[in-house]
Amino acid sequence: MQFVSVEQLALFIGRCFIAAEVPEDDAKIVAELMSEADVNGSDGHGVFRLPQYIERIKNKGINLQPNINIAEDKGAMAVVDGDNALGHLVMHYATELAINRASEHGISWVGVRHSNHAGPAALYAKMPLKKDMIGIYVAVGSANHLPPWGGTEMLLSTNPIAVAIPAQEESPIVLDMATTVAAYGKVKTAMQRGESIPEGWMIDKLGNPLTDPSKANEGFLLPIGGPKGYGLALVFGLLAGTLNGAAFGKNVIDFNADSKSFTNTGQFIVALSIECFGDVSLFKKNVDEVIRSMRASSKLPGFDEIRVPGERSLNTRRQREQSGIPIPDALCENLNRLSISLNTEPLRLLE
Amino acid sequence: MQFVSVEQLALFIGRCFIAAEVPEDDAKIVAELMSEADVNGSDGHGVFRLPQYIERIKNKGINLQPNINIAEDKGAMAVVDGDNALGHLVMHYATELAINRASEHGISWVGVRHSNHAGPAALYAKMPLKKDMIGIYVAVGSANHLPPWGGTEMLLSTNPIAVAIPAQEESPIVLDMATTVAAYGKVKTAMQRGESIPEGWMIDKLGNPLTDPSKANEGFLLPIGGPKGYGLALVFGLLAGTLNGAAFGKNVIDFNADSKSFTNTGQFIVALSIECFGDVSLFKKNVDEVIRSMRASSKLPGFDEIRVPGERSLNTRRQREQSGIPIPDALCENLNRLSISLNTEPLRLLE
Repeated sequence: MQFVSVEQLALFIGRCFIAAEVPEDDAKIVAELMSEADVNGSDGHGVFRLPQYIERIKNKGINLQPNINIAEDKGAMAVVDGDNALGHLVMHYATELAINRASEHGISWVGVRHSNHAGPAALYAKMPLKKDMIGIYVAVGSANHLPPWGGTEMLLSTNPIAVAIPAQEESPIVLDMATTVAAYGKVKTAMQRGESIPEGWMIDKLGNPLTDPSKANEGFLLPIGGPKGYGLALVFGLLAGTLNGAAFGKNVIDFNADSKSFTNTGQFIVALSIECFGDVSLFKKNVDEVIRSMRASSKLPGFDEIRVPGERSLNTRRQREQSGIPIPDALCENLNRLSISLNTEPLRLLE
Repeated sequence: MQFVSVEQLALFIGRCFIAAEVPEDDAKIVAELMSEADVNGSDGHGVFRLPQYIERIKNKGINLQPNINIAEDKGAMAVVDGDNALGHLVMHYATELAINRASEHGISWVGVRHSNHAGPAALYAKMPLKKDMIGIYVAVGSANHLPPWGGTEMLLSTNPIAVAIPAQEESPIVLDMATTVAAYGKVKTAMQRGESIPEGWMIDKLGNPLTDPSKANEGFLLPIGGPKGYGLALVFGLLAGTLNGAAFGKNVIDFNADSKSFTNTGQFIVALSIECFGDVSLFKKNVDEVIRSMRASSKLPGFDEIRVPGERSLNTRRQREQSGIPIPDALCENLNRLSISLNTEPLRLLE
């Protein structure tokens, strides 16, 4: 295991994108969001994805000179056309738009079409927090790993949701979850680390547990709560994909297997301006109280603490800001190969 | 088991409310929504709740002359103050408002405070369908049956979500789910029927499975996907309750145990006008295609069909419209006692 600082990681990602002919300002935005993912502990959605993004750029699967624009507009709602840009750029644009619109209308809902994989859901849900807004983000996942309940055809993705809610003295609540028991990124991380995965994450085509992540292609993920998780993945896909004129279901391109085809990824972001609902500081104090009451609950045998969503990620962030972001050896080798192929300076690791 | 027609059930519910001094127009609205719940198969949320509602009215726990009004308003979003009216009246008002606002702004988000238990979530999510809109409804449940993940204090409710999405030739997709493995209403129904409940629905305070619904008070519901379902229940509660200035967490009144105290129930409804996102008929055709592709998936051993959310409820509705709504004997006796106490005509059962 090697370690890297957030700053050096962002610089490395930026260098690679610039070497792959991404415009400098765009490279900077994506590099900051990707290293933000890593420092927050979203190991399956940060620099881990860089070789894949670069591969897609080389295969002309990404538009490096996009015209990201507003295709539909009613003020409080809009649909952004990402023009096949890097997903982080599209969602960065859409989220800023949602924040602006919510300050005028109290709420805004911005859907996105012609986007791409944009990293962890929490990145975008958290952006409205800076304006005392609540953020809600939903995405169509970039590969189908989930069949309908009772089926074996992978017609659905893990379609995640993230919700970020500010507090006063406590840290914000940040829920970021796949509608499957485990996100596929976690399976990929386990595979890369040579670890097995717990029973309950995946089953094979006969319905038997699958615990060897290197056989992930022979099975599929399980939804949370059985038919309920399937239902959530389905409606999230219709709202983030179909409603925006983006891909969902059979039309989803597996971006792990295909680095060329236009993915037409769909996402949406909702921003809610708290001051339009009532007093902001009263709301935040009430959130503090809710958080503290959860934490103070008596505990089940075997549990020594109760957390609220976002707490583990924040602890990871604090630790990584101090000691650096861990980079497993296999990933380190991949990133070295990448910098050689791009003829750019390698990742500067911590001593 | 006895059976009743939808029409007679609505008439009976209306008679009881009028006898309990609910104004006639209001009684009619609530009776139609409650019998709608029963015909759709929401057995824990229809006439089953009538004795409890009447008890609350008698105890002055409901305001029968409410001034339901818009407390906060930014056009696309609003907060409705239900003035402690019957929850169905508040949500009926709020949903009509949301539909009107969405036709102007493309989207609307209407939160509700000072409301009450309003029956099954799907009732309100489905209302925008008539205007080619998508509906999303979330409520703070009316009693806490869920601890935070790892805890034993029941600080959360089953906080349900419903999402309704129209199709062209197919029936709409209607997801209506608690964030717990089972809704508490299902536990109550099993208790009334003298049936046991499956392992995985509830645990006791030591973490052991609880399968006897008559001991439900000694344990608590389990969230879907463990910490994920807890996270959903938490953020849904903050959005439907705290954000609207309504009760959530420790402040929730258990309306099963307390028929007097002002509940300050919170809910919200979102309406999305499909035409503002793109062509309505293209969208609906795409939903048809998604539904058909799910159904056509090859199946896991042990499954003979694949359903989409809303299908089972629709099948139940068709059957009940033909053969009547089943009323278990115990419920029948309760309803007879109720009509005697209200000095009104009893439920007219099918021969």
